[in-house]
Amino acid sequence: MAKAPKANAVVGQSGGPTAVINASLVGVIEEANKHPEIENLYGARYAVVGMANDDFIDLKKLSADTLEQVADTPCSALGSSRDKPDEEYCAKILDVFKKRDIRYFFYIGGNDSANTAHIINIMAADTGYELRAFHIPKTVDNDLLVTDHCPGYGTAAKFEACALMGDDMDNRTLPGIKIDVIMGRHAGFLTAATALGKQRDDDGPHLVYVPERGVSLDKFLSDVEDVYKKLGRCVVAVSEGICDPDGVTWAEKLAKESETDSHGNIQLSGTGALADFLAGEAKTKLGAKRVRADTFGYLQRSFAGLRSEVDAREARWCGRHAVGYAMEDVSGSVAIKRLGNGPDYAVELFRTELINVAEKAKPMPDEFINAEGNGVTNAFIEYAMPLTGGLPKTGHLGNYPRV
Amino acid sequence: MAKAPKANAVVGQSGGPTAVINASLVGVIEEANKHPEIENLYGARYAVVGMANDDFIDLKKLSADTLEQVADTPCSALGSSRDKPDEEYCAKILDVFKKRDIRYFFYIGGNDSANTAHIINIMAADTGYELRAFHIPKTVDNDLLVTDHCPGYGTAAKFEACALMGDDMDNRTLPGIKIDVIMGRHAGFLTAATALGKQRDDDGPHLVYVPERGVSLDKFLSDVEDVYKKLGRCVVAVSEGICDPDGVTWAEKLAKESETDSHGNIQLSGTGALADFLAGEAKTKLGAKRVRADTFGYLQRSFAGLRSEVDAREARWCGRHAVGYAMEDVSGSVAIKRLGNGPDYAVELFRTELINVAEKAKPMPDEFINAEGNGVTNAFIEYAMPLTGGLPKTGHLGNYPRV
Repeated sequence: MAKAPKANAVVGQSGGPTAVINASLVGVIEEANKHPEIENLYGARYAVVGMANDDFIDLKKLSADTLEQVADTPCSALGSSRDKPDEEYCAKILDVFKKRDIRYFFYIGGNDSANTAHIINIMAADTGYELRAFHIPKTVDNDLLVTDHCPGYGTAAKFEACALMGDDMDNRTLPGIKIDVIMGRHAGFLTAATALGKQRDDDGPHLVYVPERGVSLDKFLSDVEDVYKKLGRCVVAVSEGICDPDGVTWAEKLAKESETDSHGNIQLSGTGALADFLAGEAKTKLGAKRVRADTFGYLQRSFAGLRSEVDAREARWCGRHAVGYAMEDVSGSVAIKRLGNGPDYAVELFRTELINVAEKAKPMPDEFINAEGNGVTNAFIEYAMPLTGGLPKTGHLGNYPRV
Repeated sequence: MAKAPKANAVVGQSGGPTAVINASLVGVIEEANKHPEIENLYGARYAVVGMANDDFIDLKKLSADTLEQVADTPCSALGSSRDKPDEEYCAKILDVFKKRDIRYFFYIGGNDSANTAHIINIMAADTGYELRAFHIPKTVDNDLLVTDHCPGYGTAAKFEACALMGDDMDNRTLPGIKIDVIMGRHAGFLTAATALGKQRDDDGPHLVYVPERGVSLDKFLSDVEDVYKKLGRCVVAVSEGICDPDGVTWAEKLAKESETDSHGNIQLSGTGALADFLAGEAKTKLGAKRVRADTFGYLQRSFAGLRSEVDAREARWCGRHAVGYAMEDVSGSVAIKRLGNGPDYAVELFRTELINVAEKAKPMPDEFINAEGNGVTNAFIEYAMPLTGGLPKTGHLGNYPRV
């Protein structure tokens, strides 16, 4: 392995934000400060946009106070972008890298970002330009391959759990049917996390639907009716990516039906329309008196008042390790290996090839979803609980004997 | 004043839940345990429903652990009801009280609950039945008269502030127009609280609309356009009760227009429809590329992961003081007086007459809303900040010099 060059480095934050993506950024900064091989560390403003347009800030001059404040703040302090750079775009980035003698490239993001790092790395090698490209995982969806879990997921999972703990208490207070639509178009990990706070047999969410299992609207309504008849109330968590057994999402299907009926062009994803539609169905078809629905929206990934300390710590480690790996290797993605679980929860980090992570997505494994396809298993709870860093306990008097 | 009778007591939790209404319940329980005058303390299941149907649990037998767990849990551990009892309903309640020798009545709720306590108290006096009736304030809307602020508001205000701090960072990450629809049909205190987390001149929410000030859709869109042109992004907090200058809510107006246009019966309140409508308007009329909208829903009052310790402490005091007042007086509502503000924030509690609180609602005072009617004043920030118990600091690098 060639010696690490003495040159400049760039770091960027890509895609949708998470609560701990800044912890990874600060991990990169503090580790870069320790390596004299890295002369300047440039922060790319708005990810690939800044890299292509030579728009950077100097990250080696930040005070310790600023670093800690940034590390504790949700979302991407450098700004982000959803651009998926093509070859021409990547060539432009590489030109900027060459002009600035940037030979280290750290990219915090999902599978698209791993792919961008991979493409630029290959392009550099092809033109004989020494460049070390590293991907640092982040996503609330937890859908990256190789790694046990993704930084960003633990805090979002904690948010979902706390939200449903409260929502279930709300539904005990004023009983009825409550439907919550949760982020995650393809992976159900976030929707599954709504079940993490359940502490009693009759705690909600009583039904959990993830995109990995198709379900018909009729089956959905009949499940809800069963719980409602039994408990006099029912709390449901539904992924925004919920789909029919034939794999077509309800959002697509309903949008199409609405168009056919010429009710106008109803957008069902990223709006409150899916939740409102399901509430309407439950009201009319089940005759329930009190039906409510919420769409949690961006709060799930950016809420400033809650974080998993486990998640924040691991995110920072991943940033640090990327820099460490760059002293030894030319490319890679940082991954997490779980060494122990439950009270013995522990992890170590390792390097995997960019190509193993690039563009691929991981669905929920079968053993995390119950046979009926309307709930999660204990295996999922055991997997996800340590990532939240622990959840509050709730108390309720509904089951106390009457006098 | 007559001596406090040796008899039984009932406590109920009414209306929509808050994060600290259980702290008030536990305050009542622990203080009742200290007074031998109160022989049994009955918890009314589902508020007036339990009182009318003789459905109670025994609250004197709960362990200290259970009490603390309940005190820390959002929503109403006894269950609630939205019933507004008429005279016949109240007579039924009074019959149950007489049957059980209940001579202390503690009711935690808003202005309707104060009214119920008032009516039952008068009814009892009219029939010569000695009854002491006390109201303990709770509401996320903060709209009760006499008291400086309501238990429940501080935690909900903290939620709004943390939500918008994160949402503003999200909007810095991926710039565009973001519209958040906030709870509060008549009072703007919750919507105003979204501004509490602002720490930099260009932090959002950049615009805040409360129901106390009418605004036209044109003025709203022109405000948004101004901010968007200046900053390249705009974060807006809108009350669900936002109304036209003529006082008609946008929800009503739009529902009516939709009916007229025979697009079907769109329900705009308590759904995502108002947010989706506003996002559509901003997209088409302002030509903005990225427009998103969220409706925060029930998370605002029931989220289990966040609380203001100031709020929880005061809620518990209010519960305790109600029992203390009942040893001295025949009726009343507990109110909070602010003794010092800022770092010297302190309160004391006092008793006011039920009639002063019953059925009346308090809007945001004029001095809390800016002249343009699209933001809050420093006076509001100074009023509301101490109630949150403090907010996290955020860090961002967007304003750092380029290299």
